[in-house]
Amino acid sequence: MKTLRIIPLGGLGEVGKNMMVMEYGENAIIIDAGLMFPESDMLGVDFIIPDWKYLRDKFDTVRAIIITHGHEDHIGALGHLMQELKAPIYATPLTQGLITSKLRSKKAAGEIEFRTIKPREKLQVGPFGIEPFHVCHSIPDGVGLGITTPVGLVVHSGDFKFDHTPVSGQPPDFAQLAKFAGRGVLVLLADSTNSDKPGWTRSEAVIDGALDQVFRQAPGRVMVASFASLISRIQQVINAAQRNGRKVALVGRTMVDNARIAEQLGYLTYPGELRITVNDANRLPPREVVVMTTGTQGEPLAGLGRLAVNRHRSLSIRKDDTVVISAHPIPGNEEMVFRTINYLFQRGANVIYDAIAPVHVSGHASREEQKLLINLLRPKFFVPIHGELRHLKLHSQLAQELGIPAENIAVVENGYTLSFDQKGMTVGRRVPGRYVFVDGAVAGDIGPSVLKDRETLSKDGFVLVVVPVDNYGRIASPPELISRGFIFLKDADWLVEAAQEVVTRVVNRDDLAGAGEIRGAVVSELSKFLYAETRRRPMVFAVVTRAFPTH
Amino acid sequence: MKTLRIIPLGGLGEVGKNMMVMEYGENAIIIDAGLMFPESDMLGVDFIIPDWKYLRDKFDTVRAIIITHGHEDHIGALGHLMQELKAPIYATPLTQGLITSKLRSKKAAGEIEFRTIKPREKLQVGPFGIEPFHVCHSIPDGVGLGITTPVGLVVHSGDFKFDHTPVSGQPPDFAQLAKFAGRGVLVLLADSTNSDKPGWTRSEAVIDGALDQVFRQAPGRVMVASFASLISRIQQVINAAQRNGRKVALVGRTMVDNARIAEQLGYLTYPGELRITVNDANRLPPREVVVMTTGTQGEPLAGLGRLAVNRHRSLSIRKDDTVVISAHPIPGNEEMVFRTINYLFQRGANVIYDAIAPVHVSGHASREEQKLLINLLRPKFFVPIHGELRHLKLHSQLAQELGIPAENIAVVENGYTLSFDQKGMTVGRRVPGRYVFVDGAVAGDIGPSVLKDRETLSKDGFVLVVVPVDNYGRIASPPELISRGFIFLKDADWLVEAAQEVVTRVVNRDDLAGAGEIRGAVVSELSKFLYAETRRRPMVFAVVTRAFPTH
Repeated sequence: MKTLRIIPLGGLGEVGKNMMVMEYGENAIIIDAGLMFPESDMLGVDFIIPDWKYLRDKFDTVRAIIITHGHEDHIGALGHLMQELKAPIYATPLTQGLITSKLRSKKAAGEIEFRTIKPREKLQVGPFGIEPFHVCHSIPDGVGLGITTPVGLVVHSGDFKFDHTPVSGQPPDFAQLAKFAGRGVLVLLADSTNSDKPGWTRSEAVIDGALDQVFRQAPGRVMVASFASLISRIQQVINAAQRNGRKVALVGRTMVDNARIAEQLGYLTYPGELRITVNDANRLPPREVVVMTTGTQGEPLAGLGRLAVNRHRSLSIRKDDTVVISAHPIPGNEEMVFRTINYLFQRGANVIYDAIAPVHVSGHASREEQKLLINLLRPKFFVPIHGELRHLKLHSQLAQELGIPAENIAVVENGYTLSFDQKGMTVGRRVPGRYVFVDGAVAGDIGPSVLKDRETLSKDGFVLVVVPVDNYGRIASPPELISRGFIFLKDADWLVEAAQEVVTRVVNRDDLAGAGEIRGAVVSELSKFLYAETRRRPMVFAVVTRAFPTH
Repeated sequence: MKTLRIIPLGGLGEVGKNMMVMEYGENAIIIDAGLMFPESDMLGVDFIIPDWKYLRDKFDTVRAIIITHGHEDHIGALGHLMQELKAPIYATPLTQGLITSKLRSKKAAGEIEFRTIKPREKLQVGPFGIEPFHVCHSIPDGVGLGITTPVGLVVHSGDFKFDHTPVSGQPPDFAQLAKFAGRGVLVLLADSTNSDKPGWTRSEAVIDGALDQVFRQAPGRVMVASFASLISRIQQVINAAQRNGRKVALVGRTMVDNARIAEQLGYLTYPGELRITVNDANRLPPREVVVMTTGTQGEPLAGLGRLAVNRHRSLSIRKDDTVVISAHPIPGNEEMVFRTINYLFQRGANVIYDAIAPVHVSGHASREEQKLLINLLRPKFFVPIHGELRHLKLHSQLAQELGIPAENIAVVENGYTLSFDQKGMTVGRRVPGRYVFVDGAVAGDIGPSVLKDRETLSKDGFVLVVVPVDNYGRIASPPELISRGFIFLKDADWLVEAAQEVVTRVVNRDDLAGAGEIRGAVVSELSKFLYAETRRRPMVFAVVTRAFPTH
């Protein structure tokens, strides 16, 4: 009998969140293909995708790419992946719609083969019997996966919470989970995002009450910001507007596109009489208006970011506007989010965010829900996924409290191979490949050394000195200093003059032969001098030339 | 009768936190002189101090610098201020000790005149009758200020919480607040830090229970990280160690210095039999050891940061160590804090932070305490301070709920003048000066343009092209490209070659006369070319030279 191998791919960051591979013999499936946003010290990087280098040799074994739901961190790498790999994408209707819309801009969607999956409809992919099951999350049509393999049943939770009163009206599929349990679960791969949150994540239903209160009491327009992919939240805003005599304008291309797709597929109800344009939002009585847009993470170019600094094309904040931020800052974004809120207050808006009123709830299970999932399924092996190492460790401790033996739990980082066979579970070596930086038009040509240079430049800038020498290797005219990101040289004559003296002295030394040696000595001495004077370490470059003849 | 003027100084960030000025006629006092840490887009800046440009012309009117407590954001700018200003510093004994220790490294402490203040001891400074009163905060010996002026009584809350069971044993001075209320309070300036936190901030006493549980259950050593200035927390750790049969090593210069000062002045009890060195911490039975250090904000060079990457001089993480992070991430630091936690887990430690157990509580009043302060004092005018604009707005809404009329509340940003006279309160114009960046050895030579350049460099780096021309202004040999922080040119031959062609074509044009024109055209065309090929905008520089003769 062969071995089942499960490998989460990616670098640091959340394990198995963006991409996982499941292999059995000559058959592989990929679960999700998303992107992550760079950490703040990955300077200039737009986003990060998993490095699937390990798969390249065996692309022909990939039978399916299965997408659990339509969020960026699960679909955002498909554009890059599908340029290399030819395999069908399996997804529910809404997820498919969102993928198509996303890939269309890359002119690649036409060539891709989609297979529609639905909860409780079993399908066979090579040796894998796949049973998607409905889960509640902050986007409709999300699924978890039961995967029957020759070695046993694997359950993948997807992104989930146990919401008894979700916006869609469709509660979690406890019956299906019970069925899996009855058949015996070999391994559970479960969402760890909120494993440091005690209790039970609040239901999306609590947002309705908070929105009602705001929509009723606001003296003027209400602007709600959320993620463009939070289809359930768009629905809640539309419903609350209807209940409180307001109409809704959606603003921003991605949000409008996503809403249109969701509506066409029957996942969003947006009655005609509630629809207004952004122009209507400027001329209707303010108490009848809701504007919904993006920018909850403080992104300067999104709707809210532009409103905050009064650079929106078609809207501006008025004194009586109420802004609702229906999202929570992703770690690393707090500072920008709070700055945006400060600017909005400065323009006269009242701003309501989740510290003040329950205008947002998490889409992920908290600790009590995580316990419920484990106890519903009673898996033999447990693998916490979808979280940073700290989340996985806490999730593992939680599972141990429920009686899963520590040796049956694997906390691994991305890239490690989990093997399952008759004898049990083993953690193998790390496969090559971490993540790929995407910056500008091209993926993958930014490496750690480039980032290191950017960091140095961002701290202390650089100084370039042009050294004109004569035929005898002596200084021909005063060296010219150019700097950026260092101190402001125009205000520091004394420093420039002293630096010129240092350079002149070096060049005129007798022990240097040739431009290369002069350059090396100038860089070395000038660096030392600048550090001694300013305690800063700019990058220093020297260009040794002959003086340009005056024309 | 003259006018009382109150001016919070500084730039964006918390209002009146780092420095406030109070003026009456030819007499001024300064309250606090602290620093703030830079926002993440202030690249390479070490810290920020308020710009006191406005005061420079009237330094001779400054009668006193009054410091409310010994935290960095209230004392950290004294080193710079005392280089310019000669005025006595008024502070309580512990605060004085911490200031002296801090200034000693600047060799300035000797020349500074200190005046000791104590709660309930009134002192007169020009027209200001100053009554410091005891407040509870996360450092002992903090005070708020009652300031009797010719216009009326001003109460400044300092950083405060109403902790009924503080570590020091000394509860808030409600009696003094009641006395102020009896005399009639003209204006209350109150701490707004937690105005988005409902309820009542938990007492420091809850930490004792959490520490007891950790110290008792931990299978090996316990390492507690906190701020070096959190003297109360150091005391709690020492007490919990004693209760649980452990001994304590303090590690890190600032923490050791602060503890020594606090102990000498009677603010810390650290019994000899509990003291161990860092070497003891490595050889005593692990269950008898507690190590206390700094680095709770993910600072790579602090104790915890070095432990996380195994670069500590005298300690390394062992499998059974338990790390307690007794602090909350300051907005903007979350990512680095969580990364540090992940690294510690990766090294095998168990990590306990405030999401999991109450190992930290805030030092600031939450909304119910803020209400209590306002209702204890019933001021005529209310000025929320110590918070970002969003906190001040929420604090203002809270005061209005308590019946303070909106027109008697001033929400201002740093730099605005508040004037009080017989007729009431008016908000005047903004005085010049925001903040000063301190980077390296020198303050103030980093301006917005330098930061802008650092941002550009941090995103896309730079490209320098050296263009050797002959006497006819034609290219003499292939131009050389140097880049940093752009893409990795060694892996991009095609790009380098194409760029060289672009440059050659430009130089050989017939319409360019002289090095200046050639340089301008090269920069312009090369920039366009690089953007078209890579969608990135590195800074581009050109140096036009004559080829260096080969030796």
